[in-house]
Formats: sequence, structure tokens, C-alpha cells
Amino acid sequence: MQALILEHAGKLSIRNIAIDRVMGRDDVKIAMRNVGVCGSDVHYYKHGAIGPFVVREPMVLGHEASGIVTAVGGNVTHLQPGDRVCMEPGIPDLKSRATLEGKYNLDPAVRFWATPPIHGCLMPEVVHPANFTFKLPDNVSFAEGALIEPLATGMQAADKARIRPGDVAVVIGAGTIGILTALCALAGGCSRVIIADLVQEKLDIAARYDAVTAVNIAHDNLAESVASLTEGWGAQVVFEASGSPKAYANLFDLVCPGGCTVLVGMPPQAVTLDIVGMQAKEIRIESVFRYANQFPRALALLGSGKLDIKPMISGIFPFERGIEAFERAARAEPGDVKVQISFE
Amino acid sequence: MQALILEHAGKLSIRNIAIDRVMGRDDVKIAMRNVGVCGSDVHYYKHGAIGPFVVREPMVLGHEASGIVTAVGGNVTHLQPGDRVCMEPGIPDLKSRATLEGKYNLDPAVRFWATPPIHGCLMPEVVHPANFTFKLPDNVSFAEGALIEPLATGMQAADKARIRPGDVAVVIGAGTIGILTALCALAGGCSRVIIADLVQEKLDIAARYDAVTAVNIAHDNLAESVASLTEGWGAQVVFEASGSPKAYANLFDLVCPGGCTVLVGMPPQAVTLDIVGMQAKEIRIESVFRYANQFPRALALLGSGKLDIKPMISGIFPFERGIEAFERAARAEPGDVKVQISFE
Amino acid sequence: MQALILEHAGKLSIRNIAIDRVMGRDDVKIAMRNVGVCGSDVHYYKHGAIGPFVVREPMVLGHEASGIVTAVGGNVTHLQPGDRVCMEPGIPDLKSRATLEGKYNLDPAVRFWATPPIHGCLMPEVVHPANFTFKLPDNVSFAEGALIEPLATGMQAADKARIRPGDVAVVIGAGTIGILTALCALAGGCSRVIIADLVQEKLDIAARYDAVTAVNIAHDNLAESVASLTEGWGAQVVFEASGSPKAYANLFDLVCPGGCTVLVGMPPQAVTLDIVGMQAKEIRIESVFRYANQFPRALALLGSGKLDIKPMISGIFPFERGIEAFERAARAEPGDVKVQISFE
Amino acid sequence: MQALILEHAGKLSIRNIAIDRVMGRDDVKIAMRNVGVCGSDVHYYKHGAIGPFVVREPMVLGHEASGIVTAVGGNVTHLQPGDRVCMEPGIPDLKSRATLEGKYNLDPAVRFWATPPIHGCLMPEVVHPANFTFKLPDNVSFAEGALIEPLATGMQAADKARIRPGDVAVVIGAGTIGILTALCALAGGCSRVIIADLVQEKLDIAARYDAVTAVNIAHDNLAESVASLTEGWGAQVVFEASGSPKAYANLFDLVCPGGCTVLVGMPPQAVTLDIVGMQAKEIRIESVFRYANQFPRALALLGSGKLDIKPMISGIFPFERGIEAFERAARAEPGDVKVQISFE
Repeated sequence: MQALILEHAGKLSIRNIAIDRVMGRDDVKIAMRNVGVCGSDVHYYKHGAIGPFVVREPMVLGHEASGIVTAVGGNVTHLQPGDRVCMEPGIPDLKSRATLEGKYNLDPAVRFWATPPIHGCLMPEVVHPANFTFKLPDNVSFAEGALIEPLATGMQAADKARIRPGDVAVVIGAGTIGILTALCALAGGCSRVIIADLVQEKLDIAARYDAVTAVNIAHDNLAESVASLTEGWGAQVVFEASGSPKAYANLFDLVCPGGCTVLVGMPPQAVTLDIVGMQAKEIRIESVFRYANQFPRALALLGSGKLDIKPMISGIFPFERGIEAFERAARAEPGDVKVQISFE
Repeated sequence: MQALILEHAGKLSIRNIAIDRVMGRDDVKIAMRNVGVCGSDVHYYKHGAIGPFVVREPMVLGHEASGIVTAVGGNVTHLQPGDRVCMEPGIPDLKSRATLEGKYNLDPAVRFWATPPIHGCLMPEVVHPANFTFKLPDNVSFAEGALIEPLATGMQAADKARIRPGDVAVVIGAGTIGILTALCALAGGCSRVIIADLVQEKLDIAARYDAVTAVNIAHDNLAESVASLTEGWGAQVVFEASGSPKAYANLFDLVCPGGCTVLVGMPPQAVTLDIVGMQAKEIRIESVFRYANQFPRALALLGSGKLDIKPMISGIFPFERGIEAFERAARAEPGDVKVQISFE
Repeated sequence: MQALILEHAGKLSIRNIAIDRVMGRDDVKIAMRNVGVCGSDVHYYKHGAIGPFVVREPMVLGHEASGIVTAVGGNVTHLQPGDRVCMEPGIPDLKSRATLEGKYNLDPAVRFWATPPIHGCLMPEVVHPANFTFKLPDNVSFAEGALIEPLATGMQAADKARIRPGDVAVVIGAGTIGILTALCALAGGCSRVIIADLVQEKLDIAARYDAVTAVNIAHDNLAESVASLTEGWGAQVVFEASGSPKAYANLFDLVCPGGCTVLVGMPPQAVTLDIVGMQAKEIRIESVFRYANQFPRALALLGSGKLDIKPMISGIFPFERGIEAFERAARAEPGDVKVQISFE
Repeated sequence: MQALILEHAGKLSIRNIAIDRVMGRDDVKIAMRNVGVCGSDVHYYKHGAIGPFVVREPMVLGHEASGIVTAVGGNVTHLQPGDRVCMEPGIPDLKSRATLEGKYNLDPAVRFWATPPIHGCLMPEVVHPANFTFKLPDNVSFAEGALIEPLATGMQAADKARIRPGDVAVVIGAGTIGILTALCALAGGCSRVIIADLVQEKLDIAARYDAVTAVNIAHDNLAESVASLTEGWGAQVVFEASGSPKAYANLFDLVCPGGCTVLVGMPPQAVTLDIVGMQAKEIRIESVFRYANQFPRALALLGSGKLDIKPMISGIFPFERGIEAFERAARAEPGDVKVQISFE
């Protein structure tokens, strides 16, 4: 089977590779349609590793995926051939303590597509557990279907925030995850999202949405903007989605008494935090690691029309030109949100 | 001062009445603009009492109000003359245990407009505590401002449900509170609301909104509709907003495992409940009594455009014709949601 | 293998039965030590059915169990032969939505010992999934180990209540589950438990514990006792553990504003509930169906000495006299809490 | 009236001072009995300031107090002369948003005893709002009553942790607040507390309590101790009560997946935090600022005997020798937990 393979840092190929595709009674077989290029894919491409995860052998990339079911195992009842689906890329040990406690994303034994040594899904066909495969509503395209994986991280962030109806949120960082988090916060109950970034092109994309206020922190003071939009009270929820250690400097100035900060972005080094400032407002901090049980929630919001992620898709390349897709994603153009690869 | 007065059951007048209007340092004076006619106002008009609350002397009606600040007390800093405002009608004892615990709506000493022996606000001017008076966003009209009081009950219900982003909700009953609860559930994070009633005209009003599915239970089976819209899982939240004891018969069939039921409607007699059926799904039941701290949340959602309650206003009568407004409300026409009285 | 078998309603035998004991790589083999006789065992013995669960073929009884590991499957790392253990009797479908959401107790496909057509564990040896088998702390005897299953229901009730440190609780019903719930509520953060029953012998057992106040409702008014012990405020948590429909009559009089009621007992018919009384205090109702993830919590409390359940063990019969144990349990003597059968 | 007065940094007097004692209808008058010397009192004594709070004029010290009611205002019903009481030292603006939301401790307008420019309570008589004055149970002495203020901080920490019954907790720091937090965690539902410090004398005091494991981190590795006591899973709750920036270095190694860290200690400078390590376990961080609504909870636990704080009282000095009490507290002897001053 042809696949898009990271041979080693800096070297991609599209070539044949032998992949074990034994299908169990609880699995489905899926013909791939769209696969998004994620920042982690690009990071492996450039550096060959993310923290402790090192690519030591050629590895198929890709983990944001949609497709069509072509066969189902004997125990599978909720899916059938022809179903349009998207797939959750991390499969935990179902017997683990974390899974039984409902936090399967925290199981250290999770097997996640395109996290070495596990192959990803940038190939025409995959076999996947049926209970991590989800039907797309009729109004959701394959391109949107392949966006649900990053969207699920935004959903996890919105869920962890325990948004109360009408809360005001701030999102720091208008990258892909920042904008998706903003959309999830709005769909998830916030009245308004104030989104902050240094790059105007990114803010312009976010500002197309209703109830979003974009603040360019190259020129404007975020804390003042938040105070002015909240009558001086502060935001009930602040999502840190930039991963910049600088974002932590005056973080708690943005939060209202008793409010919450959700850490979505992953800073490359340790950050400095003003604990006494946090305590004076009894701020709660939540943190996010991927997602658990969020695909059905994201699909429900897309299906009802409450979430519109179509503007996030910046370009779609056919599989044969998949390496071009990676090069474009690697350039990180400010107006790009998500580049995808299509098998159609 | 002229006021709309319930003399005794069945008898309304518009006439002069002497009302004590001493203004304290923490109060504001407000020129009234719109006042909605509530089901409780109509109930007092018809019956002279609601449960233990008996109208023993002439009482000014009305508690859903908007107006313009005309004077502010010496300690008031967040309001000034000319501000367009709405008012929370129940003032608790601020020193009570319930208030200190953040549940001031449960303080038995609360003084609530138009709940005997406390006069309501259907008069041209009122004095009110500044901290229970809220500025209207520029895009919110006085008519909408006078709808925030019933809307706040819907907000309290949505808040109590602890909606998680993407939850599916059912609302039983498409009366004023039912529709407002549906709107709050959607604005508060639900992906879809399935609303049920026997009266098609009411359902038609609700069905004008996106992501609302109306089910006429005169012809259709609600449990089947819910099952079909949730892949057989059930709704995460079911709001009981009809107050009909019959609604309790198969209530738990609608709820998913681990889901929640919020009791908003007030049934006139005790209801019968299948506890074992509730336990089999570990269902949680929440109940709602008015609201606490919901006015700012409702105003935030209206201000950002996430909530649109304009279609709820069915008719506005000038104050001089206020008794007509009560007669119309008392007829309870199926297409009417909210009748208001205006002082403009 | 010899087993204690319910042949049909009213007829128990101890005889040989062929039980499939294939051990998988994730299983352990256990030599049985103590098995408690549960109310449900006795109900099957007397009536041959509980609701929809009908005993159609001879079935081994028993689901409250402790034992010694004798062999472990190839994937099992946390247990080894010789370990003293107790076992969770219900095994869900690990792939189900309920399990992935952390509510495996609500999975309808759960296979539960001694719930037809699944055999129980009243036999000398069982094979069980290792992740539902838990090591006993050194200070916990086999008799106590076999009590953890009913104790886990009390833990689930205490967990659902979301006790805040210092809450006062009421427990209605001083049967086995009522007393165990009271102990869990105290160990779980309550300052005091007021326990109510009509039978003085049962109350006497509960009253042996510190911070327990026993109220005999044959003579005393429970609501008055609660008011007097809470300065008129009411209890933060009320556990209904009697299963008596009568307990629902004045249930909400016991609860403080904003408080909680947890339904543990299973009333044999529908109950009548005063919804308006519930709403006036915005009471929350939680319900309990067995337990999820409670065995480790119960073992932690027993291991540290914060829970003492030794007085709950009323009598232990050797396996050969197991039918006598059922007869004694069936007599339901007021001073008996738990009768067990031992394989030692 | 005689009072213990901080004249300026380093200078204490016991002398006459004129204090305004006008009693309102919602106030009570209290004859003082015991007053504890707090770390903040000592800090003002030594340095004349804590952060932005600077002692610019002579100020009466003391805020941990118990006494006897000698007179009650006209509106007061729950207290009467002769009642033994303790007092909450911070009085918020009851009309503020923070108070109405149930977080009165976060109201910036709070007036707190012995926080400049507000006088403290180290004098024979005070006037205080009745709703911040609490009756002592009969079994609680005046010395214990004056310990409830610091205990309330431990209660707030235990409450914020949202302990689930049977959780294991770690407390870093065995100072007064650390030990009180450990006791609250145990009374509030934890099965075990592992408490860590460098000073053996402090650990010895904590280790006197059941279910407390003391770890001297001068010799032992805390993370290893926690792993060994939790089968490698980690603690569900970690309370940081040392205020040492060093405690943040490997903080998240102690916490289980999905666990919680509660920040009680106030580090004198910003700390460095490993966000990615926090995210990998989706750890939640809560922070504590004094307390709200905790006095009744603390009194309930003391009243029922579930909390024993008597060993915390290290020495009591008569008021005339109050300056000696300060000198002893300032020496911070390792075996001292709490020094008090008595007016008896």
C-alpha cells in the first residue's frame, strides 16, 4: 500500500509500505478520504522527534482523518459499509485504571497514530476499532470530518473550563488550536470570546465569527481590553493556546475573581507564575491533554449547525502531492489555518 | 403616583396610590419603561393568591421591568442618570446564611415585587437597590430588557443542568418559560434542543430557531423522537418546563445514562416518580427556584447577539390600557408568548 | 466443582456443577475465602426473580467475595499467586460508551455474578479479570474483604453526594446498606450522621459509632431532630436507604436550602414527590446504581483505619452449612447485619 | 481600653487606645477570651508591612479570636448574652458582586482585623457583626475557638480540593497551616495524608494523628514515598502549604492522572512550573485565599469530635504578658504550633 512516510528528519516519501491490517470482530475497515497536516506531523518532519518520542524507523504520518467504511467486524452494529466517518487516533488500553475512571486520554499505554513507533493514517486504507470510529452527520463534509481531531482538543478545553452560560472567555493565541478553542467556547456557552495574537492575519480569520473580539497585542493592551469588555470584572475563563511562556507573565490580570485558566498550548520550557496573584482571586487552573469522549460532542455541534469550521480549511492537496502539503504547512503562512491531503 | 393595582381577586384598577420612595445611599431611582405581565401576575388577578401568598390588601402588580435611571444614591458608582437598565425584582437579606453561601434566591426573607405583601413595579417610578439594577447593552431594547426576568429563570435552569458543550437537551413544555429555557440551553452549550408540547402554535414559535426540533406529543412519541435523534443514547439534559404531572410518567426514558433532569415547571400537585427507573441510569435531578446571579449572564448573551428574544414579545400596551394587557394575558392565546405594558 | 446453587425459587443445593473456567491472559484464578449473603441472593432464593431478572435454570448464588490468588494470566502484573484479594462482581463491556465515559456500572451489557443467567461465586474457585480484582491491605481480613461489595454501594452514595467537609448527613434506614452508607458518609467528610429507623436493634448497631445520632422514628420526629441538630438549617445531604415509599413523604423537610438527596434504597413501587417543596430549596437529587471505581477507595479507607466494618459481620458459616446461612439471612433478624459463608 | 498595639515595625505596647465601639442592630458585643498569634501578626511586628499593606499608624494586632457575648443588637436572634463564640475577622461589602456570588473572601473591599488600616482584636472587648459570630459547641474550649480562624484556611483548602471519599492526599509543609490542612483533609474524606517537611519536630507533631504518614524530605524522597503508598498511581490531592518555591520543582510527580494540586502557601516570589508535565496528567490547580463559609463547617467537625486540634496549642500567655507571646512566636521554635493570649 502507498503511504506518506517520514523516512527520517527532513525526508518524506510517498511509497509502498507493508502494514499489518488484520481486522478483528470489533474493528472496521475504512477507505481514507481527508487527512489534515498537524503541527506535530510537521514537527516530526522537521526535527524527527517531539520530546521523548523519537522517530527511529520510517513512520507513516497523519492522524486527523475521515473516510468511508468498507467492511465491519462481526460484533459491530452501529456502523456499516458506506458510512461516512471520522476516527479518533488514540486507542487506550481499555482495561487500564485511567480508562475505567473515564480518562482514557491519560492512559500511558495509549497507541496514537503517527506517534513513534505507531504508524499514522496517511494511506488509502486503515483498520480501526469501531468504538473509536464516528459517523459524520450528512451536513458535515470529509474535509470538516478530518478537522474534528484538532477540534476535539478545543472541545476538551471548553469542557474542562466548566463554562457557565454567558461566561466571557479570552483565548491567547489565534493559531489553529486557538481559533478552534474560541469556536468551542462560543458553541459551549460563552457569550463572547476575546482572542489575542500578534499576527493580524490570524486575528482576521477569527474576527469573521460573531461574538469574537480580536485584540492585536502588538499594539493593544489585552488586560485593558478585557477590563473594558467586562466592566472591570475580568473574564470567567482564559484559555492559554499560544504555548508562549510570555503569555504567563500577566495571565491572572485577565481573570475575574473565582475564574479559571485552561492551559491548552504547550510551552517549550518551564514558565514563571505569580502564585500570590493567582491566590488573591482564588483562580483555578485546568490543563488539557488531547481529549476523551469529545468526538460525539463535536459532531453534535457540527451536525446542528452551531459550529462552522469550514473557514478553517486553507488548502487541500491530492495524496500524490502530499509532500507539497507538508511543505506548505511547514512554511506556516499567517493566513493558513489547516492544510489537508485528500484521497478522493 | 398612578399604579396598576390588584384590588382583590378579579378586580384591577389603574389609580393613585401612596408608595414610600425613600432613596438610600445604595439605591437608584428609575423611570419605568416596560413591564411584562407574568403568569404569576395573572394568577393573582384571577385567584387572589398563589399557595401561601394571599393578597389581603390592594397590591401593585408587575415584576418584569426595564427603565431609565433618573437619580443615584451617594455610594453608587456603576450607574448614572440616563442609564438604560433592568431590575432584579427580589431583594434578599444580605446578611442571611443563604446569601453568604451564594444562594440568595433561597433566602426565606427575600422581598419580591408583587408577592404579597410587597408591591410590584407597575408604576411610573421606582426606587431600587443599585446592586440589583443592571445596565442594558446598547443593542438591547427596553422591551427585551423587561424580558430578562423570565429569561433569568431559563438561565438558572441551564446553569443548574451543568451543560457540557454539545449536550442534547429536551424541553417539555413550549410556554414562555419553556421556550426561554430552550434558548438558554442552546446559548449555554447544547447542540440541539428537542421541545415538546401539545399546542402546535407554541411549537411553531420555538421551531423558528435554529437547532430546535419541535415534537407535537399530541401525535408523536417523544421518547422515540429523542432516541432517533441521539442514536438511542438519550438526551444528556431534560428540562421539565410544563408543570404537568403527566410529564413525569415516562420522564426518565428520555434521559441518557448518567444524564440530568431539571425541574422548572411547578406542578400543582404531588407527582408520581419511578425511582428504580431513575436509579438504573443514575439520573440526577436539579430543581430551580427563580435565579441568583443570572441577570449579568443573560445580558452578556443578549449583548453579544447569541440570544435573540425579540420574537417572544407578542404585544405591548400603553400603561393607560394596562388592564387590557392583563385581559389578553389571561386569555392565554396559544400564539402569545409575552404581553408587556409600556410607560413610554 | 461443588457450588451453592439455586435450583429454583425456594430450593437451594450444594452440589457439583460444571463451570467453564478458561483463564485468559488478563485474568486471575482465585481460591475463594468468604462470600457474603446479600439481600438480592435471598430475594432470588425466595422469589426466583428480581424484576425482569428471572432464574430459569439452576444458578450459583453469591457475589460478595474475597479469596487468594492462585494463578495469574500472562499480561497480569499487579497481582501474583498468594495475594489476598476481593473481587468486583460486575464486568462491563469495556468498549461501550458508558465505560469510556467512566460510568461502567451503567453499561446495559454488564455481566454481574448471580444475576441470571450469570452464575455467582459461591464455589471454591473462580476465574476473574485481574483489573476487577483488588489486593486487600494487610489489616483487612477476608471477612471484611467480602464486605467491600456492599460497602462500595455506600461509597458510591457518599461520592455522588459530593460531600463538602463538615456537612451533616441524614441516613433513612439502618439496614446493611443504610449503616454502610452512614459509615462512608462519615469517612467521606461528614461531621455527623443522623440515622433513622423503626427498629431499635438496628439503630443500636449504628449508634455504636462516633458521630452517629440514632433516631427511632417509631417515637421521635425526624425533621425535628434534624432541625435541632442543625440550628434549623437542615442537613446538607439526606441518603434515602430504606427503600420505603413512606420515606418520601416529608423527605425535603430534612434538607437545607441548596442541599442534596441521594436515593440508595430501591422502592418496590413508584413514589409520590412534592416537586414544589423540592424547588423552594433548589434541592438536587442523585441516584445510585451499584458503583464504579469504588473498590480502591473503600480499600484505602479500610487500610488506613478510617473505616471499621468489623461489627457488621454477624455470623460466618462454613461452606458445607451454606444453606443454613441463607436460612438465617432469610429470617432477617433485627440484630443481624451481614451473614457470610467461608471456604476456609 | 487596653490593647496590644504595634506602634511601628519592631515595637509593641500594651496601652490604652480609643476604639469606636458603636453597636448596630445587627451587631453583638463580645468580651474577648483567647486570641492566637498568627504568622501575619508576627510579620507586621518584624517588618511593619506585608506586601502592599503597610502599618502607617499604631494598629491593634490579632485576628484569631474567641469570647463571650455580652450584648446583642435588636435584630439579632441566633445569639444571646453568655454565648461562647468565635469570630470571623474579615467583613466584606455585603452588596458586592463577589459576595452575591458566594465568594465574599474575594471582595476587594473586605475589612479584615489587623490588616492596616483596620485594627485587630487584641483588646478586652469588641463589637462585631452577628452573622460573622459563631457559637462554640459545648465541647470546644475558648483556646480551640481561637484556633478556628487558621483552621478555616485548611477547611477552605480541603473544600477546594473537592476530595472524593478515600482520596490520598499529600501535604507539603508541616507548619501550622500545613498540619491544620492535613487534619481538614482527613476529616474531609481522605483516607491518608502524607505530610512532608525538613523539620523533624514538626513532623512528629503531625505523626501523632492516625492515618498520617510523615516524610522527612531531608532524608527521604517524597515522590518515591507517595508512589509506594499509592501503588505507583500518585495522590489524588496535593496541598502545597510550605510557600517554598522549591516545592514546585517536582510537584506534579506526586499527583495521579486527573488529580489536583491546592496552593495554600504563599511563596515570596514567582515560581517556576513545568506546564507540559502538568498537562500530561491533566492536573487541576486550585488556589486558596482565606475562606468563605467555613466557620460553621469547622465547628461542626469539632463539635462531633471528628477534628482534634488541642495538640496544636503550644502555649497560652495572659494578656498582660502578651508581648512575651509575640516574642515566643517570633522565635518560631520548631515544636511550637500556635501561641495564644488569654483575657481570662
